[in-house]
Amino acid sequence: MRIAVDAMGGDRAPAAAVEAAVEAARLGLAEILLVGREDDIRRERERLGAGKVPVTVVGAEEVIAADDQPVQAIQRKKNSSIVLGTALVRRGEADAFVSAGNTGALMAAGLFVCGRIPGVRRPAISGVFPTLDGVGCLVLDLGAHMDAEPLNLYQYALMGAVYTEKVRGVARPRVGLLNVGSEENKGNELTRQAYQLLKDGPFHFVGNVEGRDIFTRAADVVVCDGFVGNVLLKTLEGLGQGIFALLRQELAAGWRERLGTLLVRPALQRFARKVDYAEYGGAPLLGVDGVIIKCHGSSDARAILNGIRVAVRVVRERVREIIREEMAAGSRPGEVAGQR
Amino acid sequence: MRIAVDAMGGDRAPAAAVEAAVEAARLGLAEILLVGREDDIRRERERLGAGKVPVTVVGAEEVIAADDQPVQAIQRKKNSSIVLGTALVRRGEADAFVSAGNTGALMAAGLFVCGRIPGVRRPAISGVFPTLDGVGCLVLDLGAHMDAEPLNLYQYALMGAVYTEKVRGVARPRVGLLNVGSEENKGNELTRQAYQLLKDGPFHFVGNVEGRDIFTRAADVVVCDGFVGNVLLKTLEGLGQGIFALLRQELAAGWRERLGTLLVRPALQRFARKVDYAEYGGAPLLGVDGVIIKCHGSSDARAILNGIRVAVRVVRERVREIIREEMAAGSRPGEVAGQR
Repeated sequence: MRIAVDAMGGDRAPAAAVEAAVEAARLGLAEILLVGREDDIRRERERLGAGKVPVTVVGAEEVIAADDQPVQAIQRKKNSSIVLGTALVRRGEADAFVSAGNTGALMAAGLFVCGRIPGVRRPAISGVFPTLDGVGCLVLDLGAHMDAEPLNLYQYALMGAVYTEKVRGVARPRVGLLNVGSEENKGNELTRQAYQLLKDGPFHFVGNVEGRDIFTRAADVVVCDGFVGNVLLKTLEGLGQGIFALLRQELAAGWRERLGTLLVRPALQRFARKVDYAEYGGAPLLGVDGVIIKCHGSSDARAILNGIRVAVRVVRERVREIIREEMAAGSRPGEVAGQR
Repeated sequence: MRIAVDAMGGDRAPAAAVEAAVEAARLGLAEILLVGREDDIRRERERLGAGKVPVTVVGAEEVIAADDQPVQAIQRKKNSSIVLGTALVRRGEADAFVSAGNTGALMAAGLFVCGRIPGVRRPAISGVFPTLDGVGCLVLDLGAHMDAEPLNLYQYALMGAVYTEKVRGVARPRVGLLNVGSEENKGNELTRQAYQLLKDGPFHFVGNVEGRDIFTRAADVVVCDGFVGNVLLKTLEGLGQGIFALLRQELAAGWRERLGTLLVRPALQRFARKVDYAEYGGAPLLGVDGVIIKCHGSSDARAILNGIRVAVRVVRERVREIIREEMAAGSRPGEVAGQR
């Protein structure tokens, strides 16, 4: 199995990605292709004393920045690690591509270069949200498509359930619809119609869930339209940062607080890890006809290594092929109804 | 000025509401009418030794529970504190009604009993979200209307700006549109169209904001459709509870942590107050043709007393009348454009 890794993506690129790739090669997880600026990669490998670890370097001299406009970026920067990494997957030269780079550009490259799995109307960006039990909850769509229709949410549920069962190892994952209350008739036009499709789906639908149910893991997969998902993701990330800043400020108020903080520091660090998105590893762009794993932008080497492990499992468990079969069997609810 | 207070609403009813009402009367904030079960109110007043504080009791023997279906509840429980309190406002026997009860039922009663201010398409539930600086940010709509149109968001902005300037004392409040990015063309159909209306509004529109900008108070008023607002509200409330549970768990892990926690407890309490919704007082149902202030369900007596203060200011600053004039001048963006 060959896994391509984006050396240039994420806040800690290239150091974190190169370190993760080298470690994955050392552990023999897969054959590793590092995609990025050759000078940067060489320097990082030397720094790590990993010149002899067998990693194939694929030169990509352009870099797509986190704030580049996605579609423009992939059109203008054909020699970027994101475009070239995706192309490796398209041509079968890599089985998967792992990146902590610009999410929108990665999705755009996935769509334009690899295309959609036949039957999938709209691919989705998925992500694992922190939960109080540390297991995490898969939420999708996080922003691939801003005006979702009921059928989109149905397909997100189908794909999310396959992924969660095969890769995250949750038997019969519970699928919830993000809504403003638990009753069937709650919500807006979209969620009321989606509810009717979801309740007949070939997965374990547990009905409407509220945002708070994500943290208590009342469902293993939560579907929502990309606008709501993206607002939620950014709000929670911002809140996390804000809360830690505020907590630090209060804990530095006087000598008493500072002494106490020394004592509780390990507890606070355990707490911070549990609520850190990057700790929960990567998650796939579901519905793209190729395995592309997105890691959080703030990922360190360990988080990207987790992303590589996710990629290996997605390939080994044939997630793309299973979704392809499910879609061929019937990408619309009515079509699969008779076959269950 | 006469303010009616719902004795039966909220998690700590009737104790918290009665205590707040008695305190408001003692302070001479307004003439107070307490609406609720007479036995409960009498018992609480005796417990407080406040039998002689001049408070008018308006008997309402039925109680609408937090989980009652709103429209059914107000139709079936005509003698509930929510229906009777709203009717006092309608008949001019009270200038405002303050309640920590079922938000949906309060909005339904407001709509059916008081009606809308002429020109307002859809009233909104507003709320003050915690900010890192402790000032708070007004967010609306939090769930009155699930499928908002661009004009609704425009009217929310107008009403939210009037309220924030007159009652929250923010000069020229900055109004933001909740979205997935700052660029004008970001978002879904609704936000792209709303942006075009908002940028011509007679208020200080600062463009798109993301959820994280609420906490840093990059805007003083943030508008969104009721589905998104309600999902966000419930997610953040749930997260707050979850985070404190997790933090407590980690801080109780061993003797070292417990000793440290003793030292940092005051800091943690200051932190908790800053992120507690109830601390930020009540907020109005904007667009209802009568002053109705909703306090958070978990409000204690101090929070409800804050809600009464908000009601007094809304009445004194003539917020309803100003919104009425703004709407008469032109409830649609095109109509006001020539008059600024």
